[in-house]
Order: sequence, then structure tokens, then C-alpha cells
Amino acid sequence: MIQKASSVHKALDEAVCVKSPIKIHEAMRYSLLAGGKRVRPALCLAACELVGGDESNAMPAACAVEMIHTMSLIHDDLPCMDNDDLRRGKPTNHIVFGEDVAVLAGDSLLAFAFEHIATATSGVSSSRIVAAVGELAKSIGAEGLVAGQVVDISSTGQSDVGLDQLEFIHIHKTAALLEAAVVLGAILGGGSDEEVEKLRKYARQVGLLFQVVDDILDVTKSSQELGKTAGKDLATDKATYPKLMGLEKSREFAEKLNKEAKEQLSGFDLEKAAPLIALADYIANRQN
Amino acid sequence: MIQKASSVHKALDEAVCVKSPIKIHEAMRYSLLAGGKRVRPALCLAACELVGGDESNAMPAACAVEMIHTMSLIHDDLPCMDNDDLRRGKPTNHIVFGEDVAVLAGDSLLAFAFEHIATATSGVSSSRIVAAVGELAKSIGAEGLVAGQVVDISSTGQSDVGLDQLEFIHIHKTAALLEAAVVLGAILGGGSDEEVEKLRKYARQVGLLFQVVDDILDVTKSSQELGKTAGKDLATDKATYPKLMGLEKSREFAEKLNKEAKEQLSGFDLEKAAPLIALADYIANRQN
Repeated sequence: MIQKASSVHKALDEAVCVKSPIKIHEAMRYSLLAGGKRVRPALCLAACELVGGDESNAMPAACAVEMIHTMSLIHDDLPCMDNDDLRRGKPTNHIVFGEDVAVLAGDSLLAFAFEHIATATSGVSSSRIVAAVGELAKSIGAEGLVAGQVVDISSTGQSDVGLDQLEFIHIHKTAALLEAAVVLGAILGGGSDEEVEKLRKYARQVGLLFQVVDDILDVTKSSQELGKTAGKDLATDKATYPKLMGLEKSREFAEKLNKEAKEQLSGFDLEKAAPLIALADYIANRQN
Repeated sequence: MIQKASSVHKALDEAVCVKSPIKIHEAMRYSLLAGGKRVRPALCLAACELVGGDESNAMPAACAVEMIHTMSLIHDDLPCMDNDDLRRGKPTNHIVFGEDVAVLAGDSLLAFAFEHIATATSGVSSSRIVAAVGELAKSIGAEGLVAGQVVDISSTGQSDVGLDQLEFIHIHKTAALLEAAVVLGAILGGGSDEEVEKLRKYARQVGLLFQVVDDILDVTKSSQELGKTAGKDLATDKATYPKLMGLEKSREFAEKLNKEAKEQLSGFDLEKAAPLIALADYIANRQN
């Protein structure tokens, strides 16, 4: 995980370098290279290797997924959205560069993600690259990440948000991109349709797990421990798993999701599947 | 032109339909189907047909280019950017749907453009689709549209903006996407490398022409005639061609660009090139 994070960081650093116009590239790099756990790229690379591909086949896609994730954080933090001024322990993009540049930095990362997959992917057939572009794009738009954001915004402050609606938000806002990360890795690594679909199911469980854990951490950790504003869900009266089912039941639900995710890997060579098993455990047990 | 505009409108209407979550799809459709001249899609389809392709090969790309254009207008109109409340004769997206949804509608259109090219293009090899994705993405990001926006923002109010800087802004902010429209059409229509490059040069001249005419219209037409806030460049003391070289010289420059653009088409069958010649004239002579 740590080794993957460091090679992903290096690849991101090289993909988005400082050039003219300086300010926009600096804004993109500021958030892209601010650290982060690089969970999505790690999932992408591990899925690629599990189906027999080489890490290099999926590295541009792994970077692209992280660019999309970063874009969503930058736009999410804007004053007209969550209005957050702390992210990964640093001032958010619009605090440093201004709202206008933050909007554009997000747009630019979104576009560049596709440019990077299309122009930097090597050793993969064009038809697989086209499939990867389609999968990634779908995970972002009005049937993916954005759908989750929109329903999230409209439910904040609502007192009657149920588990179904909460799951809709999380599956779209968080799990869709995690799913894309895994599916892109499997496609670009040369996986069969059957392998891709098994890994998609693994990713869906892991994606929901990621968000359940996020909700738990929000109520149990400090801002300093998280590197972002803690207790925010409670303060904004947001629907979360701990709020709807209590802390203990949320933890049990997380354990169940982790178990089910790993079960999807049973058809694969256990040794080769070890990194994806470890990633599910990492996501389940993370402390920030 | 009118026939193309109507088939593009129909294709856009079908591509982005009303579904759950309703609000975000309505916001996307509101700006996408608000009219507009559909110049970019018309250029894309005409370039496709000029190199021997069928309109259907490039229709998803033509729609994608219009989605990107619409996204850039929605984000450009935001309070933190140009803060405009009138566009194509109607209230801007954020006025109707709120700033948060407007940001997300733009993001969603940007992502969907790539999904649409990747999943709806037919009768074209995957390698050409990958090339099209790369070209389109590059025209949007920090070396394309966004670069133009960023330099535009930082020059507003500056008193020493020269012609070079103005041309940089326009080539990136306007011409890059027009170029992508033509180049995508040529690639997806099966054009040779040589044909693609000739059409790229045509598009660059036409793109700059488009913006010079825009600048002229801003100082010579009323808001009602334009369907957007007129005289805005003057009010914000923005660098424009009329401001830097005077109205008469701007008109001469526009004529020169139109002539040079058409010259790039000399190697093609004149009859087949007629639509692109007509489009250059249309852009040169438009009144809104």
C-alpha cells in the first residue's frame, strides 16, 4: 500500500507538472499532491495485477481516478457547496487560490483525467481504453458521483432521511468512483468479462464500507486526527450510519461489508488476491 | 446549418433525458437545450462529411462538444467567475437552480461528454475514438479552454493587456474547442493525418474569427439583440479587439481570418467543402 502510494504520487507529480499558465497548474497540483491515502489508485493497480496485467498498464488510469477524486473534493469544498476550509490538514483550494481558480482547477483535473488515460496508457488495446473511458465517465456524472452529491445536498437538514436514501447517496458519492477504480484496473489489465464483474461486486461492497467507516470516524475522531473538519455531520444534522443505526450497529455493518467484499475474491488465486484483501482490511480499519 | 442545428438538438435531447435524480438532469438540460447556434456541432459534422464519413459517425462527438461548451458557459456565468445572470436570453443556470447545482451540472456535462463519445460512437475504430477523446480532453484543460479562462480572469482590469495576450486568451478560451470540434469530426470521419492537420488550421482561423466577431458584437449590439449582457467588455474594461485596434481594423482582421480559413480548404473537393466555407461566412457575418 505504502509502496503503491509512493509510485502513484510520483506518477501524478510527473503527469501534472508546473507550466504556463502557472497559477492553474499550481492549483491543480496543490490539491492533487496534498497527500491523501491513494486508496483508489491502489485498488486500480491491484485489480490490474490480479487479472494478470502489469502495473504500468493501469498507472495512467490509477492517476486519472485520483484526479477525479481530487476534483470532487475541490468542488465539494466550495463555499456554495460544503463550504469547508480544511482538507487533508491544509487550507482548501479556494482558500488558497480563490473560488474562480478552484472551480477551474477542478474542471481542468476532470478533463485531464480523460486526456491522461487516452494519451498515456500503453500496452492495452484501444477497445479496452474506450471501455475504460466509458466506465470512468459514468462513475462521475449524473448517474454517479454527481447524483450522490445532488441527493446529499437536498437531504442535508431533512429529518426523515432513511437508510435507503443514505445508501443511495453513499453508493453514488463514494462507491461509484471506487468501483470505477477497480473496474478500470481489471479492464486495462486484460481481465475477462466475468473477472471484471466479480471485481465490480467486490468494489461495490468496499465502496460502501469506505463510507460507513468515514461516518464512524467523523463522530469518533478529532479534526486533527482526520486532517479535516470532524463532527461536521453531526453539526449539520446530516444523515449518517451512526445516526440512523447507532455506532455499534454501524461497526457490525462495516464488518459484514468487509466480509462480503472478500467473498467476491474467492474465485481468484488467493495469493494474487492478497493485495485486494489487504486493501479491504485497510479500509475497514483505517483511523483517518 | 439550420437542418444540422435541428438534428443536433434532437440528438442532445435524447442523449440527456429526464431521469432520477430529476433536478440535476433538469439543470443539465436547461442550459444544453436553451437554443444556441450549435456552431461547434455543425463544424464537427461538416468536417466528418468532408473527409468521407457519415454524419452518424460524428454525431455523439458533435453532441459532446456542445456539452463541453455548455459546461463552460454554466461555470463561466457563476457568481465567483463572470457573475452573469442572462444567457441566450434566459436566466443563467445558477439563477434558476442555485450555485451548488450549477457547479454540479457543469461537472456532470463535462463527464457525460466523454461517456457519450465512448459509448455512443458507432462505425468508427476504437483507435480513432481514443484519439478523439484525447483531442477533446486537451482542448478543455489547463492547456485549452481553462488556460484561456485563467489568463482572462487575471487580465480583467489590467490596463496593459497587449494583442499577444488577447490572442492567447481567445485561442485558448474559444478557438481550442472549435478546433476540437473540427478535428474530432475529421478523425471520426476517417480522415488521413494530412486532412486532419489541414482542417485543424482552418479551425484555428475560424476560432479566432469567432471571437473577434464576438468582441465586435459586444460593442455594436444591444443585450436584446445578443440574448446576453451586451457592452459588458467595455463596462468591465476588458481587453478586446475593438479596444486594442479600433472597430474598423477589427473588421478588417475578421475578413482576413475568414479568407485565410477558407484557403486551408483549397486542397479539398470544392463542392464537398461548401458547408465549411458557408460556416466560416456564417461566423464572420453573424449578428448575434
